Amino acid sequence: MTDIARIEAAAFRLAGHALRTPLLGSAFLNDIAGRRVWVKAECLQHTGSFKFRGGWSAVSALPPEVRARGVIAYSSGNHAQGVALAAQRHGVPCVIVMPFDAPRLKIANTRAYGAEVVLYDRARENRDAIGARIAAERGLTLIKPYDEPEVIAGQGTTGLEIAEQAAELGITQADVLVCCGGGGLTAGIALALESRAPGLRARPCEPEGFDDTARSLASGTVQRNAQATGSICDAIVTPVPGAITFPINQRLCGPGLVVSDDEALQAIALAFSRLKIVLEPGGAVALAAALFRPDQIAGDDVIAVASGGNIDADLFRTALDRFGA
Amino acid sequence: MTDIARIEAAAFRLAGHALRTPLLGSAFLNDIAGRRVWVKAECLQHTGSFKFRGGWSAVSALPPEVRARGVIAYSSGNHAQGVALAAQRHGVPCVIVMPFDAPRLKIANTRAYGAEVVLYDRARENRDAIGARIAAERGLTLIKPYDEPEVIAGQGTTGLEIAEQAAELGITQADVLVCCGGGGLTAGIALALESRAPGLRARPCEPEGFDDTARSLASGTVQRNAQATGSICDAIVTPVPGAITFPINQRLCGPGLVVSDDEALQAIALAFSRLKIVLEPGGAVALAAALFRPDQIAGDDVIAVASGGNIDADLFRTALDRFGA
Repeated sequence: MTDIARIEAAAFRLAGHALRTPLLGSAFLNDIAGRRVWVKAECLQHTGSFKFRGGWSAVSALPPEVRARGVIAYSSGNHAQGVALAAQRHGVPCVIVMPFDAPRLKIANTRAYGAEVVLYDRARENRDAIGARIAAERGLTLIKPYDEPEVIAGQGTTGLEIAEQAAELGITQADVLVCCGGGGLTAGIALALESRAPGLRARPCEPEGFDDTARSLASGTVQRNAQATGSICDAIVTPVPGAITFPINQRLCGPGLVVSDDEALQAIALAFSRLKIVLEPGGAVALAAALFRPDQIAGDDVIAVASGGNIDADLFRTALDRFGA
Repeated sequence: MTDIARIEAAAFRLAGHALRTPLLGSAFLNDIAGRRVWVKAECLQHTGSFKFRGGWSAVSALPPEVRARGVIAYSSGNHAQGVALAAQRHGVPCVIVMPFDAPRLKIANTRAYGAEVVLYDRARENRDAIGARIAAERGLTLIKPYDEPEVIAGQGTTGLEIAEQAAELGITQADVLVCCGGGGLTAGIALALESRAPGLRARPCEPEGFDDTARSLASGTVQRNAQATGSICDAIVTPVPGAITFPINQRLCGPGLVVSDDEALQAIALAFSRLKIVLEPGGAVALAAALFRPDQIAGDDVIAVASGGNIDADLFRTALDRFGA
């Protein structure tokens, strides 16, 4: 299980390897939201998303003789890059199973980080089965994207930093909005806040049509999404809450928030003009919720985790075309 | 005069108000440059550029009864925003004299920070004369953009942070490339490095046709630019090195580096895809020099200051159109 001791152990292993990302703000965003908005800029993390934390945590936690045989992961792209770079820096082999329709940049980057990329069709194939088969054949250790205690612990280091940064700003009560796919980042942050900033509460944020975690929290039972594709928020399109992550999130999180793809694009354009950071749609839903769901949030401050920035230039141009100043 | 004590005093006044910006890196950029490239992301600073440091330093250094009457500044946009926000947060009046052809975003933002904006034509009018007249009429204190010791001290806090961050990375010898207009940021950083990281050397970076500082350093006498306009790097188009800044830079800086507008646009596109930060052309010339002038730089590491990110969406789209992945 992941607990605060495991998160702090992950923080110790990550020190000097992961970036302590800044907490950004802008008076312009405060005006839109009607309260102070703080943005934890994990898009600036190595590989362009928080996933490097979990990848490094999991790879660095393996016994050396196990790690030396190599690792494997399946991912729409950000977990792929996080695990690939962590493996490369540890000097061990890495195979990544990716959907063939993942953003080009993510596939190219994963290869550039030294990983062998195996593409599959997410509408017809089961990535878990593919990953398990290759892992068995080659003796690789499978690093799951969220249902893995050391991955959750690594993502939870984001929460330790938020707790510290909020304390520096004098913020003792606030919702912490987290972009949520399988729920690993949400669970890790929720656990860290429980111990280190109990007045802060994690809340998952999802795109419309893929709000499995919000509906599961609301109903008290695990809900699946009706479809597997159809949002631009590729990084957080997962079919169902995680078996390990959901019980944590059910115990600790406030209600989920849901935004449209267009609202995510608008948040991307505002992050460009107001914060000078690059977000991908799945990394912008928490900021979108902070800006466009003010009536579902309480308090003078809200913290939004901007979880990733791996967006193709075409889609970024679209965001600026439609919502740029 | 600005010395290390004045810079450290500015750092004390800025603590809790300015952001300690991260030093970012990317293996992809290292591959292009042929050495490790570290980017000091001052685009993430409040108001989107380092200028908030100098503005805050100068406004906070005024005697309270002088500060209460208000301040005035002239600027192509970034100094304007830095002084405007510093004045607003100190609760004092602020007038900003800006060229009418400054980026729309910069003019709009300066107004949004509560300043009264006075527009002028930079081809026909003298901003110094305009500023001096209004200051005298209203009893305002003129905050010059670079030839002002407290402004240089504020910009120098960037150098204190670079010294600390380089030490954390074990970097003891490196060129620190700085986007250079009037030379205030360059001078402040050079002074901070002289005392706190003597193995690091500041080097000014300028756009082609506006390389007055590079030519002045090379010739040993102050050189003017032949033209007043004609580069997209609006933030660092100044006619001549500063009277206070140039002697500092002459004593402490290595040779200047010069890049083209197209190279600045290419650096913007690479900062988008590899660092997830938004740069304006004048804030990208140091990164462009780090990437595209490898033969003019020595050592295993180079640090580039990404000094600002206030770019209009249209020009950013152009950078992605031409140089995006």
